[in-house]
Amino acid sequence: MSLSSKKRLDVKEKYIVESSMQDLWNVWFTELHLGNSGLTVKVKRLVETAQSRYQRIDVLDTEDFGKMLVLYGSIMVAENDLFSYNEMITHVPLFAHPGPERVLIIGGGDGGALTNVMKHPEVKSATMCEIDRMVVEISTRHFPELSTGFRDKRARIIFRDGRKYIETGRRKFDIILLDLSDPIGPAANLFQKSFHQGVFNRLNDDGIMVAQSESPYYNAETVRQMYDNLREIFPIVKMYSCHVPIYPSCYWTFAFCSKKYHPIVDFDIDRYKKLKLKNNYYNLDVHIGAFALPEYVKKLIGEK
Amino acid sequence: MSLSSKKRLDVKEKYIVESSMQDLWNVWFTELHLGNSGLTVKVKRLVETAQSRYQRIDVLDTEDFGKMLVLYGSIMVAENDLFSYNEMITHVPLFAHPGPERVLIIGGGDGGALTNVMKHPEVKSATMCEIDRMVVEISTRHFPELSTGFRDKRARIIFRDGRKYIETGRRKFDIILLDLSDPIGPAANLFQKSFHQGVFNRLNDDGIMVAQSESPYYNAETVRQMYDNLREIFPIVKMYSCHVPIYPSCYWTFAFCSKKYHPIVDFDIDRYKKLKLKNNYYNLDVHIGAFALPEYVKKLIGEK
Repeated sequence: MSLSSKKRLDVKEKYIVESSMQDLWNVWFTELHLGNSGLTVKVKRLVETAQSRYQRIDVLDTEDFGKMLVLYGSIMVAENDLFSYNEMITHVPLFAHPGPERVLIIGGGDGGALTNVMKHPEVKSATMCEIDRMVVEISTRHFPELSTGFRDKRARIIFRDGRKYIETGRRKFDIILLDLSDPIGPAANLFQKSFHQGVFNRLNDDGIMVAQSESPYYNAETVRQMYDNLREIFPIVKMYSCHVPIYPSCYWTFAFCSKKYHPIVDFDIDRYKKLKLKNNYYNLDVHIGAFALPEYVKKLIGEK
Repeated sequence: MSLSSKKRLDVKEKYIVESSMQDLWNVWFTELHLGNSGLTVKVKRLVETAQSRYQRIDVLDTEDFGKMLVLYGSIMVAENDLFSYNEMITHVPLFAHPGPERVLIIGGGDGGALTNVMKHPEVKSATMCEIDRMVVEISTRHFPELSTGFRDKRARIIFRDGRKYIETGRRKFDIILLDLSDPIGPAANLFQKSFHQGVFNRLNDDGIMVAQSESPYYNAETVRQMYDNLREIFPIVKMYSCHVPIYPSCYWTFAFCSKKYHPIVDFDIDRYKKLKLKNNYYNLDVHIGAFALPEYVKKLIGEK
């Protein structure tokens, strides 16, 4: 898909700081996590601020994290992040499925998940269904390395509400990734049980869904409820985690939900070794170690 | 050791906020990590501020983390933390050694490591060598659950410079834990190679040292140098990690340095099962999974 051929959106640069003003420029962006604490980051420049039909979108240039994409007040992507989230949401299910030919991503507007999916030669088609075209536009402009997957011939981008896409379509998938923002804002109803049931129905009989499942430290009740629901739908539900310095508590989890394959027992080590991915975070050890959950997390989601 | 029998230290409460002033009380504490970003926390009350001979010590009461101990500007302990750090620095080496009878802790003034060491019945004596008596005093007063180990008959507390204790003593230990604050401030010279060589010399022939080894995300150069040095001293050097919401990047590492035992191969699963620890973080899965290192960390410390 070529984005350059599309009409440029009306994005307003609200603040431009001239170099002569730098001495007076002492601006900090803070993402509050529980309301009374959070990550605070010194901002070099507000690169772009836009209001899409669905949410506020900011791109901030920061000293410590480089450029950051902020959706609805939450930091989503940053240049100096580890890119662990995108590698982990993608490679764990793709190496657990013996033939991941048809992949669907719901959300994922920054392109990071799609770009990692496209690294697997087994994938014949990858569809990304993102509600907010402006997120894709802005990400492509400011985070070009994340979004190289958009240019792959096997990739197809649809701008549509994920819920409607899941409920109205018929084609089935081997892998469905729920690469969503937080359950406040536009992604709220994509955390509900009825949606997960819909995703189950759109998977082949040996299909795998992976959903980002928030921070068990800060979002304990959301996490508990989500896993209770998922276990009523999928025969295999396993949580795995990774370190994301820009996310709340820097500890992020994923729900591996599967009709047939186990994430470790069915891990395709031969394909992993053959593909020789150049990752920053994901590797064989991490694939297995990520499923080792701390005691408080096991208790939270009722895992023995 | 009874602390109550000791002379109360001259600790000044600099700020006391009356309830009538609460409306005007909007105080935030920020720990900067790289200088231009960090964790920011709303402070309900400055409980205690002291200047010891070695460092500034603050106890803050916060909305999200409860009471927090801050040494030399760095958050060390908080009531709503996961207590992962103390469990991980302790149980990993103690279950890897078949007979951890004599344990030494350098630092560890908050008492958390000692309290966890005392949960192992194999331990016959545990010595804690902390330079700053005031840290122990203040921790005992505000974090009593962390410091129950101080009252154990097998425990002995020495207030002395760790370097001098290591260099001048002769008795040997099965386990030595370096439970230190950051390599700025009073613990700076306890991160040097000559100190680690001294610790090696004070270990029995099958002894294990575990040292906290900072965040590979924020302190990459410190971590790289430290592991290069440790590998020149110990035959077995393995990094493991845990999630600590109150530390920089929330991802903290430990150097497992051993003369004989491997942390996973020699893990004593029978003793682990028998002891039935009631942990918040550490368990069998985590003991093994914590040694799975992300790709960028493996590259940083040259591990294949």
